[in-house]
Amino acid sequence: MTAAEQLRNEQADFVAAVAGELTGFLTSRQGIMSGISSDIDPIMGSISNLVTGGKRLRALMCYWGWRGAGGEAGAAEVVTAGAALELFQAAALIHDDIIDRSDTRRGGPSVHRRFSQLHESQGWALDSERFGQAAAILAGDLCLSFSEEAFTDIGDRAASGSRARLIFNLMRAEVMAGQYLDILEEVAGPVRDRAGAVSRAQSIIRFKSAKYSTEHPLALGGALAGGTNDLLRGYSAFALPLGEAFQLRDDVLGVFGDPLTTGKPAGDDLREGKRTVLVALALDQAAPAESEFIDARLGSPDLTDGDVQEIRRIIEDSGALQATEVLIGEYGAAAYEALEALDLDELPKTALRRLAEATVSRAS
Amino acid sequence: MTAAEQLRNEQADFVAAVAGELTGFLTSRQGIMSGISSDIDPIMGSISNLVTGGKRLRALMCYWGWRGAGGEAGAAEVVTAGAALELFQAAALIHDDIIDRSDTRRGGPSVHRRFSQLHESQGWALDSERFGQAAAILAGDLCLSFSEEAFTDIGDRAASGSRARLIFNLMRAEVMAGQYLDILEEVAGPVRDRAGAVSRAQSIIRFKSAKYSTEHPLALGGALAGGTNDLLRGYSAFALPLGEAFQLRDDVLGVFGDPLTTGKPAGDDLREGKRTVLVALALDQAAPAESEFIDARLGSPDLTDGDVQEIRRIIEDSGALQATEVLIGEYGAAAYEALEALDLDELPKTALRRLAEATVSRAS
Repeated sequence: MTAAEQLRNEQADFVAAVAGELTGFLTSRQGIMSGISSDIDPIMGSISNLVTGGKRLRALMCYWGWRGAGGEAGAAEVVTAGAALELFQAAALIHDDIIDRSDTRRGGPSVHRRFSQLHESQGWALDSERFGQAAAILAGDLCLSFSEEAFTDIGDRAASGSRARLIFNLMRAEVMAGQYLDILEEVAGPVRDRAGAVSRAQSIIRFKSAKYSTEHPLALGGALAGGTNDLLRGYSAFALPLGEAFQLRDDVLGVFGDPLTTGKPAGDDLREGKRTVLVALALDQAAPAESEFIDARLGSPDLTDGDVQEIRRIIEDSGALQATEVLIGEYGAAAYEALEALDLDELPKTALRRLAEATVSRAS
Repeated sequence: MTAAEQLRNEQADFVAAVAGELTGFLTSRQGIMSGISSDIDPIMGSISNLVTGGKRLRALMCYWGWRGAGGEAGAAEVVTAGAALELFQAAALIHDDIIDRSDTRRGGPSVHRRFSQLHESQGWALDSERFGQAAAILAGDLCLSFSEEAFTDIGDRAASGSRARLIFNLMRAEVMAGQYLDILEEVAGPVRDRAGAVSRAQSIIRFKSAKYSTEHPLALGGALAGGTNDLLRGYSAFALPLGEAFQLRDDVLGVFGDPLTTGKPAGDDLREGKRTVLVALALDQAAPAESEFIDARLGSPDLTDGDVQEIRRIIEDSGALQATEVLIGEYGAAAYEALEALDLDELPKTALRRLAEATVSRAS
């Protein structure tokens, strides 16, 4: 078996083990819920549906962080940690989609839309949209509780006061804080000083995405395997710029991505009013009339396809798209440099390099 | 010192210790959040504000459950458990108020209203109501995570696999399931068979309220102190009917309560469309035309004061109010009987009797 095959097999085994862990976890909870009422099945179904998809980026970061710190291949603790991270991600997506009024997720209806549709198909009373949101708030809360239950299932290595527990707690608090800064910038951005907009957008990226998607999951794996604080600092030097590049790529895809590949409508981020680094750079670099056009149309629910095209044109012509691609390149380079400086075995180092490549150059 | 004074003092000491624990906990998290951005202060402020009020019913149930099982007075574990329960209750209230579109909580604005008002006062862009809801979803998520962090802070007695942890997990899952059944009944109730409405309403009460407000907190305290499974079963025989009486009282107050005492607008539950036992009994017992009137107006956002008065009249004249008071009396009697059968020291037994009295006969 070549090294590349070994890597692929080990990673596939881990992903399958996480999927199995999630199925087992949710089946046991389904048993509890069935005892209450079969009416709860759609809530459980919406969670199951969401955790069966996705790129498993966070679980994989955790796994290779664990392996890099000397953890045993396929050990139960890191599989459970991976499942906990996937459940947390599902909870975040459910609430995120309510907040952003996103009707689609991975090409299908988002959870609040699923429940609005259930309401409509059953001919129930009162407002279907309101019911959908309420049900999705509760589904997200349940999934958030599940993520923590799964995390606690890791056992001693994640006990009260452990480094792994502290990282998990910090991750949750930071992503929620980052999401708040994100929605705050949508509404407060237009009246705050434009000079600080790029740096505010970068701070949002760091907390709502980079720390959560790459830095903390990698550190979590390292901490669970008993890695030194030095190793964890090295992990961070790699994963933080990687996560920033990941989110900048996400922002570019949110404006320029192909709906068939991303599973989200074209220009979705513009309709939601996201003030990303990409948008902040455009507002800063475009002609005043063009900046005003973006400011006036961003976040408008009745944004036309023509508006989307015009904003795209301004972002391109202002040089903001190019500047963002340069930033992605710089963050990516910083990540690769930090990765090479890490004293890791060849297998986890190669695995992290592959993950980094997939993250920075992805199209969905 | 008389026995009554001893009880009052010990209970006051515990309530003060929980308040201190909450302040310490939130101050340490405020430190983390300040490191991200002072923009997050209003989120932390909304959580602090919510945990400083309230009746501390769940924390007190936990405390006397602990003491009844032989736990030491004022011990750190039970104080931390009380703080975790209060944080969980705050998280539930934040999301509940979004779901029910309740603009007031304890006489002040609810969290989503606070953020809508912040938006309006700052002259921010886009929609203030939407911003308020999004901020409150995130504030509730953060508070839910905090409740679990506090619970884990209890240490070994609440470790992975412990009875206390299992009770805490079951409590969270059941209350979320119960809340979903509650909103489902609002929309599906009108098209489901009326004959099953009272029993569906009783099931909702059990899961969204009775188990969560009294049964599980009492059991949690007992489990933390190492109480036997027999004791925990005895606790349940007392606390479950007590919690059912508690929620039936809440339902009566939601329709007939004095806004000055409850801190909520008159007839709020009717505007929200809650299909409580009280309402289900009225639908069952009133004349067809009157039942139809309730069915048509319940949950209508433009319900007039005249409508509220008419629905109140129907609930009274149909005998539903009287029948609910009889149920409250029966549940209360079952609770007292189970309490007397418990083999407890005089102090915790008296304390639980007092809590039960306050719970069943309260006016707010």
